[in-house]
Amino acid sequence: MRVMICGGDGFCGWPTALYLSRQGHDVAIVDSLVRRQWDGELGTQSLLPIASPEARLAAWRTRTGHDIRLHIGDMTDADFLYGVLRTERPQGIVHFAEQRSAPYSMLDRAHAVFTQVNNVVGTLNLLYGIKEVVPDCHLVKLGTMGEYGTPDIDIEEGYIEIHHKGRSDVLPFPKQPGSMYHLSKVHDSHNLDFACRVWGLAATDLHQGVVYGVQTEETALEPALWNRFDTDAVFGTVLNRFVAETAAGQPLTVYGEGGQTRGFIQIADTVRCVELALLHPARPGRLRVFNQFTEQFSVMDLARRVAAVAGEMGVGTGLASLPNPRVEQERHHYRAAHTELVALGLRPHLLDDALIRDLLCLARRFSDRIVTDKLLPEVHWR
Amino acid sequence: MRVMICGGDGFCGWPTALYLSRQGHDVAIVDSLVRRQWDGELGTQSLLPIASPEARLAAWRTRTGHDIRLHIGDMTDADFLYGVLRTERPQGIVHFAEQRSAPYSMLDRAHAVFTQVNNVVGTLNLLYGIKEVVPDCHLVKLGTMGEYGTPDIDIEEGYIEIHHKGRSDVLPFPKQPGSMYHLSKVHDSHNLDFACRVWGLAATDLHQGVVYGVQTEETALEPALWNRFDTDAVFGTVLNRFVAETAAGQPLTVYGEGGQTRGFIQIADTVRCVELALLHPARPGRLRVFNQFTEQFSVMDLARRVAAVAGEMGVGTGLASLPNPRVEQERHHYRAAHTELVALGLRPHLLDDALIRDLLCLARRFSDRIVTDKLLPEVHWR
Repeated sequence: MRVMICGGDGFCGWPTALYLSRQGHDVAIVDSLVRRQWDGELGTQSLLPIASPEARLAAWRTRTGHDIRLHIGDMTDADFLYGVLRTERPQGIVHFAEQRSAPYSMLDRAHAVFTQVNNVVGTLNLLYGIKEVVPDCHLVKLGTMGEYGTPDIDIEEGYIEIHHKGRSDVLPFPKQPGSMYHLSKVHDSHNLDFACRVWGLAATDLHQGVVYGVQTEETALEPALWNRFDTDAVFGTVLNRFVAETAAGQPLTVYGEGGQTRGFIQIADTVRCVELALLHPARPGRLRVFNQFTEQFSVMDLARRVAAVAGEMGVGTGLASLPNPRVEQERHHYRAAHTELVALGLRPHLLDDALIRDLLCLARRFSDRIVTDKLLPEVHWR
Repeated sequence: MRVMICGGDGFCGWPTALYLSRQGHDVAIVDSLVRRQWDGELGTQSLLPIASPEARLAAWRTRTGHDIRLHIGDMTDADFLYGVLRTERPQGIVHFAEQRSAPYSMLDRAHAVFTQVNNVVGTLNLLYGIKEVVPDCHLVKLGTMGEYGTPDIDIEEGYIEIHHKGRSDVLPFPKQPGSMYHLSKVHDSHNLDFACRVWGLAATDLHQGVVYGVQTEETALEPALWNRFDTDAVFGTVLNRFVAETAAGQPLTVYGEGGQTRGFIQIADTVRCVELALLHPARPGRLRVFNQFTEQFSVMDLARRVAAVAGEMGVGTGLASLPNPRVEQERHHYRAAHTELVALGLRPHLLDDALIRDLLCLARRFSDRIVTDKLLPEVHWR
């Protein structure tokens, strides 16, 4: 399948591009490379050193014989994007190309506006581009489980049947997102829903849980293919941050009570879920939503898991309960459906001690690259 | 009360500014005047000639002794907006300052992107401005009943209690908006909801129905105070368009079957609803939503009402059923709650033949200003 990966230089996009390429798909990457600039803005860096996009692709070609094309440009530039669509004529598009950090979006007004404009306009341009250039293309768009918030009822996959005053309808699941970033994803979801309903596009919105892990079989092949490993409080995700904090000899930073429960997924499963969505495209005319995660954990669960594995390895660590920089419930109901991708064939890789151990080894090996004064949260929701 | 009216030069904003000024409030208008430019872009004009903003305010001052201040600038310019907030320090803000036409937003990709960026960024800037400059200020934001779409259950005011798998919660009512413009309002509503929940702002989202009528007691006082009367297929609302079509000797343009049912409100009630919301501010911490309309009609109901009144006046007219340029249900359930504003004291002005007759007289008097080739819809949803 001819597949275009928007955001294919990023934490999820890069492993996905390699995985799909290895599976025999014809892959092109579209990326502005802005994520690499944000490291400079924030004074952070990937724990694993990552090669330039060109060096990555050359290494992949040498290693596997597979060619991945690269288009460097910004999706908010419609002329650029339309040009790429006309050149590539993809059958499937995977859209990761968004500002994906909640704390980054909450830095200040300018970053909130940037996040919403960047994400919403990039996605709008893509929807119009698909409609006008490749209307039969199936769009696989990355959303987030964070769109739902923490309602006091079970979370379903995108829609819920509501019975009300003697009538009923199946309607989009109500959204209560918790940051300017999460809001941008909710805006995207509504725009996608419209494009499917009104223009008859075919799209799948992957409401992804928190991703943990770093390497996949493909990125681990050699250093030039390594994936980025974010350890800072802005772009690092919770389990990966705990591992980095342990490697840096710092206590694990649990926000508030740590009872915040979310859906989680390993990066090795992210790439498989994306392929499953591509191989089983949504029907045109109605946005399909999958909840893309494999297990639920509370933040405290994860802190204890990491601390236990570190203990077995003889690495001392401790838990630091910080005042929560976010505004969120710390004890709440959370039970979210996630059966659709399993029905398509996903065999989940669940969190095990071996993975935590591997991550800890990796983090300790490169611990001199951890920017230790960026581990504590500096962005406050209020 | 010190009130700031964003979009106070527009169709709803101008009558609201005058009404609140006459009620004794201390009013300032913020407006970029861009709505006047769109007439040029589209080759249309207001059926009633409207004075310049400065002439309008001078006439109001001379006539009533009330001073309304004017700040000309764009809400997407945060520096400008923050400066105005620091100068005015409003106790209440009414926010009409958005691109409000569904067909305009559906012209093409560029207009869709403009509408969403303009509306979302202006509102985000205002939310941050309130948080940082006037955190105790109550925001009254204009949303639209079109955010809900046409679900097969009754529509409630902003929230719905959902019972699901043995649990229940009161959640935001699911939204299924029908244009890029309506989507922008849904995005705004989510951003407002967040600002209330997370920052503790006080805000009311007025989900307004389709507005009809033109003049209020205040705008009718003299020509320099007249309100705009849009007759074109892009900015004209349905009843007003039917009246203008009759005055132009054209058949009434019913889209499709005409069974599309919506909530409607007279402009004279719009200004009263806004004052009621200001006088009874929302509690901080949770977005309040009112459905701001007084009656439901189908498009065909309204066409028949206008044709009947025209007939009594001896003015010939007819109905033209056009292929629907929009993608929407033409037969559907529609029953929407609208009790909150009545509970605060609204005494609705219902649609009567006298109002249609007055509108028809006005439109016939200025019928030479109707741009007849702009009455038919040229913007198609697909």
